[in-house]
Amino acid sequence: MADTHTDHTSKLKRLNRVEGQVRGISKMIEEGKYCVDILTQIKAAKSALGSIERQILEDHMHGCIKKSFKEKSSKKSEQMIDEVISLVKKMTN
Amino acid sequence: MADTHTDHTSKLKRLNRVEGQVRGISKMIEEGKYCVDILTQIKAAKSALGSIERQILEDHMHGCIKKSFKEKSSKKSEQMIDEVISLVKKMTN
Amino acid sequence: MADTHTDHTSKLKRLNRVEGQVRGISKMIEEGKYCVDILTQIKAAKSALGSIERQILEDHMHGCIKKSFKEKSSKKSEQMIDEVISLVKKMTN
Amino acid sequence: MADTHTDHTSKLKRLNRVEGQVRGISKMIEEGKYCVDILTQIKAAKSALGSIERQILEDHMHGCIKKSFKEKSSKKSEQMIDEVISLVKKMTN
Repeated sequence: MADTHTDHTSKLKRLNRVEGQVRGISKMIEEGKYCVDILTQIKAAKSALGSIERQILEDHMHGCIKKSFKEKSSKKSEQMIDEVISLVKKMTN
Repeated sequence: MADTHTDHTSKLKRLNRVEGQVRGISKMIEEGKYCVDILTQIKAAKSALGSIERQILEDHMHGCIKKSFKEKSSKKSEQMIDEVISLVKKMTN
Repeated sequence: MADTHTDHTSKLKRLNRVEGQVRGISKMIEEGKYCVDILTQIKAAKSALGSIERQILEDHMHGCIKKSFKEKSSKKSEQMIDEVISLVKKMTN
Repeated sequence: MADTHTDHTSKLKRLNRVEGQVRGISKMIEEGKYCVDILTQIKAAKSALGSIERQILEDHMHGCIKKSFKEKSSKKSEQMIDEVISLVKKMTN
């Protein structure tokens, strides 16, 4: 329980930072800053989102696989695993 | 002049929308929404940033190449072109 | 068993095709073909490799998770799952 | 002239190496090698193709922009530049 909470807090903090980065990019455009610097900032924001994405995917996989272990019906358990795998395929595309 | 202004406005609008998307993702996490839906939203925000990025790169290339055409010193003109090309290489990496 | 065999055959066929594509790209360069067409072919070869990659990852995940289900030691089973998850993180990076 | 030749040779060498890598991946699959190692090799082949791709794009941009500088008709020159830029957009997508 505590774990999940800490974890949420960390993701929210990181998303908050991304929000600030995006706002910063708007400001750079308004102020006519050099394009190359703006592009660097956009790349940074995209990469921060990508890292949050991977974290969420990892947590989801852990949760899903753990639940499927506890599942008594092996059919339902397999369904859960298939769902995780198709999600991973989507994410790596 | 007017063009640049319109163009800025369109980029700022799109960045504003991305800011809203990121805020929405935070809310989804706070409300314990389903991970797969959160991941879909993150993907959408990343893709929106990517499209703004390409737009800025395109405008920058147009501007740079145009300026390099007007440049009298062919050495300086070549430098400008090299800068654009190394930026493109960085962006495609 | 038969499944695995069929599956190997399909991957080998696809890799064979990629090999042919790469050889074709070399030929295009030797013959001085138009760069844009060469770039299109490279993109196609990269995308074909990416699709084989996702297929192998998917099969590996299925195999690993199935094995971890059968594992009696829950510690070893968790290790296997952690390995899969860290592989997925590497692949989505 | 000599430059172009050297350059072609280097690209052909690198493509040759990629062909060998792809053949090696087929062999790994036939021999039932560990999936994670196969995935690492696929990643390497994709990355090698990506680097050849960037090299070809760079050369093409240099060539195109140089030609457009020499072009007397400014309309045709602009067309050439637009072509380069739309290619870059396609490559960064």
